[in-house]
Amino acid sequence: MTTIQIEQTTQPKQKPAVEQLGFGKHFTDHMCIVDYTEGQGWHDARIIPYQPLTLDPSAMVFHYGQTVFEGMKAYKTAAGDITLFRPERNFARLNASNARLCIPAMDEALALQALKELVKLDESWIPTAENTSLYIRPFIIATEPYLGVSPSKNYQFIIIMSPVGSYYAEGINPVKILVEKQYVRAVAGGTGEAKTGGNYASSLKAQELASQQGYAQTLWLDGRENEYIEEVGSMNIFFKINGTVITPALNGSILPGITRDSMIQVLQHKGIPVEERRISITEIIEAHQNGTLEESFGTGTAAVISPIGELKFGDHQYVINNGQIGEVSQLLYDTLTGIQYGKIDDPFGWRVIV
Amino acid sequence: MTTIQIEQTTQPKQKPAVEQLGFGKHFTDHMCIVDYTEGQGWHDARIIPYQPLTLDPSAMVFHYGQTVFEGMKAYKTAAGDITLFRPERNFARLNASNARLCIPAMDEALALQALKELVKLDESWIPTAENTSLYIRPFIIATEPYLGVSPSKNYQFIIIMSPVGSYYAEGINPVKILVEKQYVRAVAGGTGEAKTGGNYASSLKAQELASQQGYAQTLWLDGRENEYIEEVGSMNIFFKINGTVITPALNGSILPGITRDSMIQVLQHKGIPVEERRISITEIIEAHQNGTLEESFGTGTAAVISPIGELKFGDHQYVINNGQIGEVSQLLYDTLTGIQYGKIDDPFGWRVIV
Ligand SMILES: Cc1ncc(COP(=O)(O)O)c(C=O)c1O
Ligand SMILES: Cc1ncc(COP(=O)(O)O)c(C=O)c1O
Repeated sequence: MTTIQIEQTTQPKQKPAVEQLGFGKHFTDHMCIVDYTEGQGWHDARIIPYQPLTLDPSAMVFHYGQTVFEGMKAYKTAAGDITLFRPERNFARLNASNARLCIPAMDEALALQALKELVKLDESWIPTAENTSLYIRPFIIATEPYLGVSPSKNYQFIIIMSPVGSYYAEGINPVKILVEKQYVRAVAGGTGEAKTGGNYASSLKAQELASQQGYAQTLWLDGRENEYIEEVGSMNIFFKINGTVITPALNGSILPGITRDSMIQVLQHKGIPVEERRISITEIIEAHQNGTLEESFGTGTAAVISPIGELKFGDHQYVINNGQIGEVSQLLYDTLTGIQYGKIDDPFGWRVIV
Repeated sequence: MTTIQIEQTTQPKQKPAVEQLGFGKHFTDHMCIVDYTEGQGWHDARIIPYQPLTLDPSAMVFHYGQTVFEGMKAYKTAAGDITLFRPERNFARLNASNARLCIPAMDEALALQALKELVKLDESWIPTAENTSLYIRPFIIATEPYLGVSPSKNYQFIIIMSPVGSYYAEGINPVKILVEKQYVRAVAGGTGEAKTGGNYASSLKAQELASQQGYAQTLWLDGRENEYIEEVGSMNIFFKINGTVITPALNGSILPGITRDSMIQVLQHKGIPVEERRISITEIIEAHQNGTLEESFGTGTAAVISPIGELKFGDHQYVINNGQIGEVSQLLYDTLTGIQYGKIDDPFGWRVIV
């Protein structure tokens, strides 16, 4: 175990009321920083009061997008425990992203240790109302003050945390999704499977155009043929066709979601047929037309499950399951949140008590 | 004309010796900042002493890569004038990048005015040795402290400047280039034609692998078919085949280089045949094999021209023009640098005297 220096705040902030939480707007009293210096490695792990970063305007992060991040949550159980959900998977994925972005690997055990200490210190920030949680954002930025296009020699690994409200305060309402035919989020050989800023920057335009048309999110097709389904917004996507649940196989341009992986395991555990494979938009439209498209939903840490009530493709609208949440979607939602909040058994060993 | 507040430094830095300049390592005494606030627009244009930026760790730039930038230069002529090269094109391109990244348009006239005032204030930082210059980096970062994936409500437009040494202090030596078949820089529908951080982040890995094999840069193929030539490193690319100069047409995934555009105009002006069109790597290899591939070079603000002496594609190496700079490459280099440093006439009206 590394020693993590802790400097406690002398000015704790006032906590927002539960109905003001929202997502990613309020931040806790402390943050964690670990520095990386070429030749020295990661060093000086510390927890300090939440505060601004001070960086040279030539720091590489401002110019060449050399960043990676993660998203995870801490939950408060009825018994008063703090739980994390498969946190080791987030730090493993962080390192996979690092490898793609030429960022030196982070010590995963140190990251998890730092996270646990930070969560413990800011425990009072974990909201306790139904389906609220503490969103955790680990990220790495390139800090070398240099304008050459090359990997940075210095980095900071940072963790900040934000209490978040219930995603479904008004009940789970299926959303309308626009299938995007022009803009591309990621392509084979690009950075789609890494959690790096550029993927999100490139998604903003299509998202904006979808909103203007009254759609909640973009359904992304592959960048080579604009035909194969990849993701929805910043979630993985599932369909239930004729009793079988299918999701696009990880192909290098899809983010390997931890919720996605968990859903696949839950389905297998419950004996519901599930397949990871290539899925074309044509197949989905055909399934809709012959009445076998039964459910569709996005999966991700923020919403767990986001049921899709309508797909718009070209000039046509395809309503799914009468715009209602499907049975399997609801089952998966209940199972995963049940495990996360410690309401049901965890046969997978996913819950980590802090 | 907007009033730009100027706060002069009271502690001018020591200037580096000319042989220590390099590229993008040293920065001048001042910088320019303009803020953007939703509802208020761009405001508070100011020139202040060069100093660190202070940003909330949740500022969007650290997470979702919503950034754009430009690269241009100021030159000192023998007559003592300060010149810029087509600077209005850089700010027009900045706004094209902004549109793709959902960043509000910048006032181009204000940007140019601010740049001129900044260059004048830091005039003593423009190096005067042969082929040295002052590199100028305008950039915009998303500053809203919010973790939702959506366009930021606040931004900063910033200009920093760095005195840079001669790119060819040891003479113009053609470089060896590796044709990249696995990694992709950009794809149709992505952000390739915008100057945004994510494109550079995604290029680092292939660049690293190329360096390990002794190659200076990556030649990028298109992301859909991995067959059509796009760019080289962070430059546009030209070939001379059988007397005709060709360069890939702007197709949405290629950055519209200002040097590229200038080269095309210079070639036309000199009566040398030039074409913008789709070029496959197969065509280039065939031209090499039948002896008609006469020259190849990259173009960009930093190097002006970077002749390509060898292409490696798969297991084969293709030496171009005996690894020497070609006649047309040299002519273009001399013409463009001649105009930039005020050594020759400027029939195009590209030089802007500050
Ligand atoms: C692009 C993208 N796809 C999918 C996901 C879902 O991943 P996870 O289930 O690990 O949250 C995320 C993030 O949460 C994402 O950003
Ligand atoms: C990806 C890329 N291509 C091409 C260029 C050349 O553009 P310009 O000639 O405007 O410098 C640049 C930047 O300079 C670049 O970053």
